[in-house]
Amino acid sequence: MPEAPPPGALVVGVDYGTLSGRALVVRVSDGAELGSAVCEYPHAVVDRELPGSGRTLPPEWALQVPADYVQVLRTAVPEAIRAAGVDPADVIGIATDFTACTMVPTTADGTPLCELPEFADEPHAFVKLWRHHAAQGQAMRINALAEQRGESWLPRYGGLISSEWEFAKGLQVLEEAPAVYAAMEHWVEAADWIVWQLCGSYVRNACTAGYKGILQDGDYPSPDFLRELDPDFEHFVTSKLEHPLGQLGDRAGGLSAQAAEWTGLPEGIAVAVGNVDAHVTAPAAQAVAPGQMVAIMGTSTCHVMNGDQLAEVPGMCGVVDGGIVRGLWGYEAGQSGVGDIFGWFVNNGVPPAYHDAAREAGISVHEHLTRLAAGQAIGEHGLVALDWHSGNRSVLVDHELSGLVLGQTLSTRPEDTYRALLEATAFGTRTIVEAFQTSGVPVTELIVAGGLLKNRLLMQIYADVCDLPLSTIRSDQGPALGSAIHAAVAAGAYPDVHAASAVMGACNRGVYQPVPANVAAYDELFDEYTALHDHFGRGGNDVMHRMKARRRKALAATGHDADPPVTAPEVDAPAATTFEGAPA
Amino acid sequence: MPEAPPPGALVVGVDYGTLSGRALVVRVSDGAELGSAVCEYPHAVVDRELPGSGRTLPPEWALQVPADYVQVLRTAVPEAIRAAGVDPADVIGIATDFTACTMVPTTADGTPLCELPEFADEPHAFVKLWRHHAAQGQAMRINALAEQRGESWLPRYGGLISSEWEFAKGLQVLEEAPAVYAAMEHWVEAADWIVWQLCGSYVRNACTAGYKGILQDGDYPSPDFLRELDPDFEHFVTSKLEHPLGQLGDRAGGLSAQAAEWTGLPEGIAVAVGNVDAHVTAPAAQAVAPGQMVAIMGTSTCHVMNGDQLAEVPGMCGVVDGGIVRGLWGYEAGQSGVGDIFGWFVNNGVPPAYHDAAREAGISVHEHLTRLAAGQAIGEHGLVALDWHSGNRSVLVDHELSGLVLGQTLSTRPEDTYRALLEATAFGTRTIVEAFQTSGVPVTELIVAGGLLKNRLLMQIYADVCDLPLSTIRSDQGPALGSAIHAAVAAGAYPDVHAASAVMGACNRGVYQPVPANVAAYDELFDEYTALHDHFGRGGNDVMHRMKARRRKALAATGHDADPPVTAPEVDAPAATTFEGAPA
Repeated sequence: MPEAPPPGALVVGVDYGTLSGRALVVRVSDGAELGSAVCEYPHAVVDRELPGSGRTLPPEWALQVPADYVQVLRTAVPEAIRAAGVDPADVIGIATDFTACTMVPTTADGTPLCELPEFADEPHAFVKLWRHHAAQGQAMRINALAEQRGESWLPRYGGLISSEWEFAKGLQVLEEAPAVYAAMEHWVEAADWIVWQLCGSYVRNACTAGYKGILQDGDYPSPDFLRELDPDFEHFVTSKLEHPLGQLGDRAGGLSAQAAEWTGLPEGIAVAVGNVDAHVTAPAAQAVAPGQMVAIMGTSTCHVMNGDQLAEVPGMCGVVDGGIVRGLWGYEAGQSGVGDIFGWFVNNGVPPAYHDAAREAGISVHEHLTRLAAGQAIGEHGLVALDWHSGNRSVLVDHELSGLVLGQTLSTRPEDTYRALLEATAFGTRTIVEAFQTSGVPVTELIVAGGLLKNRLLMQIYADVCDLPLSTIRSDQGPALGSAIHAAVAAGAYPDVHAASAVMGACNRGVYQPVPANVAAYDELFDEYTALHDHFGRGGNDVMHRMKARRRKALAATGHDADPPVTAPEVDAPAATTFEGAPA
Repeated sequence: MPEAPPPGALVVGVDYGTLSGRALVVRVSDGAELGSAVCEYPHAVVDRELPGSGRTLPPEWALQVPADYVQVLRTAVPEAIRAAGVDPADVIGIATDFTACTMVPTTADGTPLCELPEFADEPHAFVKLWRHHAAQGQAMRINALAEQRGESWLPRYGGLISSEWEFAKGLQVLEEAPAVYAAMEHWVEAADWIVWQLCGSYVRNACTAGYKGILQDGDYPSPDFLRELDPDFEHFVTSKLEHPLGQLGDRAGGLSAQAAEWTGLPEGIAVAVGNVDAHVTAPAAQAVAPGQMVAIMGTSTCHVMNGDQLAEVPGMCGVVDGGIVRGLWGYEAGQSGVGDIFGWFVNNGVPPAYHDAAREAGISVHEHLTRLAAGQAIGEHGLVALDWHSGNRSVLVDHELSGLVLGQTLSTRPEDTYRALLEATAFGTRTIVEAFQTSGVPVTELIVAGGLLKNRLLMQIYADVCDLPLSTIRSDQGPALGSAIHAAVAAGAYPDVHAASAVMGACNRGVYQPVPANVAAYDELFDEYTALHDHFGRGGNDVMHRMKARRRKALAATGHDADPPVTAPEVDAPAATTFEGAPA
């Protein structure tokens, strides 16, 4: 057992999102959030032209500048300490979580290649952000070959390796910028790179190594497999990727003198092993027991859940030993489109009178539609929708699928369609829950984090559709709190993440209970959803595939921009969601 | 052969729409339109409370006041003569067309029962407008019984008798107001009642008797059938309905002294047999030959076409001997929703920025969306839609169907959906055209009348989708011109409607030609439409039926208003369309 921390001991959690980093000062003894600060990345997302040279980037690229991450340590951390009004000497540990899979190519000492003069003008030398989608071709080859060879790791990822992950992005570097590839000593998750900056040593975290790095049962994809992809890729694992692992909650090292200077925190305090924004949210929500499914609901939804058995669940994003907490199998699943579908509808499908009415009432259009929709009985709108506007990442794993709304009449109003879309995403979650259940991984509770939890109608619909009690995370800063929990464990204040989560995490337990009459009504509608889901998603009619192919062909002929190829989505930190749900 | 009319001879056509009557003065020798005037009905549509007593009407009711029709004769006709600056003495004939099925209960001398003091407060004594939808229950019993008994006339109506027609409305009078039914000596189409007012004699026109009165091969539904519906309905045909017929273009009588006083026209001039707005449009568009399909495109679309053979076409509204012109089989088909779907979308699904842009450009939102959509290649939007927002009246004859849009992504814009809806209605027309073709009734040309012909993108889409040359009626007042043609024939100025149409009618022939590349592209998309059409319309998945049933149940439970039951639509005069199409 670790020694009890001093009374008044503090930890700092830093959540690295897509556009900014947020530092949060938390009291170890009770999880109280004492102060926070945000630092916007000076270069934000680099997706049009490279800083400095102004070199234009192709479509689908999304880069970042690693110095921006250090800037967060230099500004947000000391500001959070000041905001909390505490003595930095009381801080006993720091931990970080990051978007993933976000990759930094570095030299042997961790220097990002883009900081070398010879590569300052080379896009491949920069950080590839999670939503860099230009390695789609590489991902397709990885998947085709893995399926052909019957690679044992493929089912651990629901049958699909994403273009966002380490191998696809790495192969793109090799094939498009061999000089960068040759100079790259390490291909490092940003989640680990920032820890390296904090403690001076490179520790690869078990979470991203498993979910994004295809590390399963101690092995990466074989040299044989990699050679078949590209002869020069054969030694990718041994020469660029492989590195000793750290388990979540472990101490990666002590805060370096330089990092102490940046942050104003005491040199030598514990720095935790790196982690991912979605996964770190589970302990912040007190939801680390098997069967507690955490849904981080923002523009898309990421589901993370622990299980005590290994199972291969159709369409899951991945299952990783110790991927969420040490000693359990961490499952991840996702829905490609949730809040972004609602946002798309509000931006593209709601007439002026509704915008005016919302403005007059001093509420958002989302809230206005939610209020109108909340007055309806289940089934009253007569609609059923498929939530595949960004394809389907769950169960079907088919990004060529698209959205559908059925049942319109001349009486159909915007709030009807809005409610049908809310329901469709709930049906999507139920489909995932059922896939887990039938694969032998029980789901007993839904715990919601992320911006959408503010929409009470949506929450009740999820509880009713899934027939599960629904809890909501209490913190508004789930990922940063989750990191703080990891910092406390790394500092030895708690024996493990479970224990720290029980004290420092918090959720409003079971605030939405399924209403039996609603459950029965939604059972019927879910059958309708499932019939459409299976018809259009399992080969009954492949019209969605053909329409997307025609669209691409037509756009190519006209020279218009096509949609970005949609790949397996990563949920960004909830704080980055653009959706503002509202109570109904 | 009739004698040549005097040079400078004129005729008057009067088109009775849903809200107003329009009189048009036309030169017999060349069809020149010399002047027109409109008279709004003082009581418009009576659908909330009865005039005078203020008695409240139930939902689905739609009545009119017959004196309003006479008002049109007294004001619009003399005003049109004045506007034309002509001598009324030069007018040699008058003809009318009317909405149908619009029914007047009268005494033996044609007095509407609502004009009798004892019935002034009785809704059933008023005119039942075409869109009176409160006889749905009666219509369902008529259809069920006819199908059960295998009545030979049922296939002549595509398998469905509408609640709007003579028998359903008549049965409603019997069952809900037996005293009115007993006092009713004649159950008269308004199309014939107005002719009765003009010439003093009741002549039942062959068009409505066939299309709305179930007169086929010289017989109405049998007393046996009627008795089984309701014992007291057994003698409905012989006691209320049956009456000597007049063929279209025939002279019903001479203008009475009273009608001459109302109109300012010479007593004794020819009054033509009554007619229906959609059907009278065909000769105005010079489209009375077999194979020329006239599509009157407004809020909904009515298709009328002559054929020289009798055939039973799936889902047609009716086939009537001499129903459009004497000596040919007149076919009628329809699409329940067309312009009203576009209008619904513009009112309910287009965001403020589009309204603003349209306003700044000084164009309608329809026109703005059309311009944006016109720039797209076929298939570029990636969408396919079903045009069943008002159910399906063609081929499937199923009013419980509903709309569908498939293929949405987060990049889908309003103009994409708008174009998909335009295309869906074109696919709906092609489905009808193909039903005619495969039933042995060739369609060789599309001739479009009605407000939507102004939308050039829509017209080109129809030509491409149907792979038919598309012509457009030249007159803006097609029905009134069609009536004027009938007046000229009734006055003996032409031997028949064919001959008069060739001189007095006009169309812009073949202004839209199918483009082979577009035809090929739309062939593919039509296959997608048809697959969805058959899946959802022919029992593959009856989800639309179930969703409508759930909606009704939910609304009944909440006490909210349900949609009006949708019945076979009648196309109102094109002038009444609320859709303003615009050139792209």
